Amino acid sequence: MRNTVMMRSNDNVAIAIHDLKKGDHATAEVCVNEAIPQAHKVALVDIPKNGVVRRYGVVLGYAKAAIKAGDWINETSLILPKSPELHDMPYNTNIDTDLPTPPRTTFMGYDNEGSDYAGTRNILGIQTTVQCVVGILKVAVKKMKQDLLPKYPNVDDIVIISHAYGCGVAIDAPEAKIPIRAVRNIMKNPNFGGQLMVVGLGCEKLTPERVMDEADINDDNFILLQDHHGFQNILKALYAMAEKKLAVLNQRQRVALPLSKLSVGMQCGGSDAFSGVTANPAAGYASDLLVSGGATVMFSEVTEVRDGVEFIAQRIPDKPNCDKLAQEMSWYDHYLAEGGVDRSANPTPGNKAGGLSTIVEKSMGSIAKSGAAPVSQVVSAGEIPTKHGLIFNATPASDFVCGTMQLASGMAMEVFMTGRGTPYNLEAAPVIKVCSRTDLKEFWQDLIDINAGTIATGDKTVEEVGTELFNFIIDVASGAKPVAEQLGLYNDICIFNPAPIT
Amino acid sequence: MRNTVMMRSNDNVAIAIHDLKKGDHATAEVCVNEAIPQAHKVALVDIPKNGVVRRYGVVLGYAKAAIKAGDWINETSLILPKSPELHDMPYNTNIDTDLPTPPRTTFMGYDNEGSDYAGTRNILGIQTTVQCVVGILKVAVKKMKQDLLPKYPNVDDIVIISHAYGCGVAIDAPEAKIPIRAVRNIMKNPNFGGQLMVVGLGCEKLTPERVMDEADINDDNFILLQDHHGFQNILKALYAMAEKKLAVLNQRQRVALPLSKLSVGMQCGGSDAFSGVTANPAAGYASDLLVSGGATVMFSEVTEVRDGVEFIAQRIPDKPNCDKLAQEMSWYDHYLAEGGVDRSANPTPGNKAGGLSTIVEKSMGSIAKSGAAPVSQVVSAGEIPTKHGLIFNATPASDFVCGTMQLASGMAMEVFMTGRGTPYNLEAAPVIKVCSRTDLKEFWQDLIDINAGTIATGDKTVEEVGTELFNFIIDVASGAKPVAEQLGLYNDICIFNPAPIT
Ligand SMILES: [Ca+2]
Ligand SMILES: [Ca+2]
Ligand SMILES: [Ca+2]
Ligand SMILES: [Ca+2]
Ligand SMILES: [Ca+2]
Repeated sequence: MRNTVMMRSNDNVAIAIHDLKKGDHATAEVCVNEAIPQAHKVALVDIPKNGVVRRYGVVLGYAKAAIKAGDWINETSLILPKSPELHDMPYNTNIDTDLPTPPRTTFMGYDNEGSDYAGTRNILGIQTTVQCVVGILKVAVKKMKQDLLPKYPNVDDIVIISHAYGCGVAIDAPEAKIPIRAVRNIMKNPNFGGQLMVVGLGCEKLTPERVMDEADINDDNFILLQDHHGFQNILKALYAMAEKKLAVLNQRQRVALPLSKLSVGMQCGGSDAFSGVTANPAAGYASDLLVSGGATVMFSEVTEVRDGVEFIAQRIPDKPNCDKLAQEMSWYDHYLAEGGVDRSANPTPGNKAGGLSTIVEKSMGSIAKSGAAPVSQVVSAGEIPTKHGLIFNATPASDFVCGTMQLASGMAMEVFMTGRGTPYNLEAAPVIKVCSRTDLKEFWQDLIDINAGTIATGDKTVEEVGTELFNFIIDVASGAKPVAEQLGLYNDICIFNPAPIT
Repeated sequence: MRNTVMMRSNDNVAIAIHDLKKGDHATAEVCVNEAIPQAHKVALVDIPKNGVVRRYGVVLGYAKAAIKAGDWINETSLILPKSPELHDMPYNTNIDTDLPTPPRTTFMGYDNEGSDYAGTRNILGIQTTVQCVVGILKVAVKKMKQDLLPKYPNVDDIVIISHAYGCGVAIDAPEAKIPIRAVRNIMKNPNFGGQLMVVGLGCEKLTPERVMDEADINDDNFILLQDHHGFQNILKALYAMAEKKLAVLNQRQRVALPLSKLSVGMQCGGSDAFSGVTANPAAGYASDLLVSGGATVMFSEVTEVRDGVEFIAQRIPDKPNCDKLAQEMSWYDHYLAEGGVDRSANPTPGNKAGGLSTIVEKSMGSIAKSGAAPVSQVVSAGEIPTKHGLIFNATPASDFVCGTMQLASGMAMEVFMTGRGTPYNLEAAPVIKVCSRTDLKEFWQDLIDINAGTIATGDKTVEEVGTELFNFIIDVASGAKPVAEQLGLYNDICIFNPAPIT
């Protein structure tokens, strides 16, 4: 049985996958010189004083004193490198184009003519311009699912995008552009097949002009409840529009498509000390396979990557996207400071006990899910990327807000890494759950799809689990259902609105 | 047919209920001296230069020149009174204790032992500490409604309080107290009968200690999904807890209770030029009947009352509550200014065309729903009042956020005035819809409960519609279903969270 795991081939430390005692093998060649707790770092080679300590392929710090192969490395062993300021981050210094080759290069998706991305599901998505309409819409859609869906067997579902935005909001406030963009872009999600159905009330602040293209604002796509004479006529109008859209969607068939048509979101939540050791690195390997095959992969969660942001910058080839990264981080710094958020308590004593010596190392555990590929574009929360490949999508880390904003950015499915366990799933796009430990998989057999804990037990490598995950991503993109979709577990849409409620 | 309507008996202007031409009667004694547009003001008596112009019982301004009975009064006729600063508002200067006597003094409600307020419905409310649990909870509750509810026929419904708060939030930010208070207090709503059922995941920031009393945190009331072995065992645990609560709730019976056990929220949305002339004044009269009978009535919507706030202060008998009113207004001023909200465009040209000469007059149309009673207490958004009578509850005006925060403050039902029409309703408390115009009632016959438009057509007085509304409030409190409840239209819970998402 293996005792340690390495994150990246050029690292000079490995991670103890259980408590090690003096004399245990770290590798075939290296034995540990002292007791090392689970999830902590062990030196694999001799490191001279001031020598580099590298994990996740990045410099965590410099040795305070000479370190011998087999020594325990923790926060007391390191001189921390000075983090660059946001305006001064080096870019284009770590462009890794030697990505692994994906074992499969196509998936069976719903092509969207004229669009970069295909659907992984075939859904009638009903967008709302205000929460006011949701009560009637829920009654209507419940009946539609019984009466209409059986007539259109190629359509998977009818989904209401129910949100709290649209009225009672500061619609002209500077930051209102974020929720407005989300409402505008969610309806363009590839799983909705380009069929627009937008339902408004009639007196809300979020007028159709703010969220629809002018050419789309017509009776084929847009209903105002206040235009219809009573409940029964409202139902009739909703049915008539839905039926037209369902008939078009029903024509769609899954066809073999190149990976360049696939857009995948990556996220984590409920992380534990092994998330950055098993699940996220495996997801990173899967991400590299996807990107290498031409797919688009989004990673997000600003607050989780913030302290390691310079390592994202190094993977950006061009100045404009590096500047955009700095701008987004700066916007969030300001947003959190205005709200009185204290960032200084990082890493926590618990983080250090869990083997995370520095705030950079903690962030790297989250960034690990993005693999090693270059970052081709940085986009704002809810913005639709214009490039393929690996995208940094600057959303909050909140699972629901991140997922909602990734939907707006066009993800057709999501991969979610968890340490503690969550039943999280979305109605508009399937979510694969990857856990960091085998005991969680055993405890929640029917709520977790992929167990990355086998990396910690030494039964599988990061590459093996990453490849398993890649294959499951392709299967799910092609119609296989993750556990949460099989059980019909769906969370609410939670749009990011940093502007005031009025 | 009547041509004008007065808002309050000591006003010296009336409102034209349709376009009047020169010579038309404003009252039996007064004919109009010039054409006066619908919804605009006509002088009922001669007013000398600098004399007071009074509507809603308050001073709108002073006559720029002598005004004759029958003259049109608009923004060009008035010298505006200087509004006092927030720190300097006179209080206790307009205490009206001569309230109308309610025609009924009891309702048939669900008494809550040891609590000030009774339920108007008998509901198992399931509180969540984080959105993560909602997917499983929706599946569980759908099955519970089929399997369990029929066994407990005295229980009306099972309702999930699904919200976006709980994790991915700045839990220690100063303003986090607002959403945390909302989560804590919603579960105490009188419609839930004191039966606590709280569902968490296990790794969220919103721990049970933050939202439950220590004595309540035990296996009888609180479930963590991460403690249960897989989906089926989670379902079993949820079922077991729900069934115990349902058995207790099923013992509840409607009994005759004094109005002091009733808590009613007042709100408006989608207002038009007649909202402040018909629906809101009628609601104000109903409010006075309720308060006079000992009930608690909450009005809210800070942004709508802001410009007339000194007229609320005048109705507060004591300095501490006047100070609290000033604090709340000041907090919102700061909150909106930080978010870049521009308050300067008030009243709009459309407001003036609609007969609203000043920002004060516009606010008074909203404040009108609070009647004339003294304000016994001012509470923050989501805070539970400790006094009965008329309460100002400082929430945003957003219909869903206001309704959610009023639920947290303990309202057992809501009265909602609308000009343009909305199907708004809540799952946790019934909502009565009152419209401002007869044509809306005719157009949305099955979506509106009470038509206050008969005040504008001259068929009924404010007092008559107010009494009709009061009687319907008592009926609904006693179990009668408003139209939206009959149709099963339910909007989402939208907690007010001014703190950052992380
Ligand atoms: Ca992500
Ligand atoms: Ca995370
Ligand atoms: Ca997350
Ligand atoms: Ca209002
Ligand atoms: Ca409102």
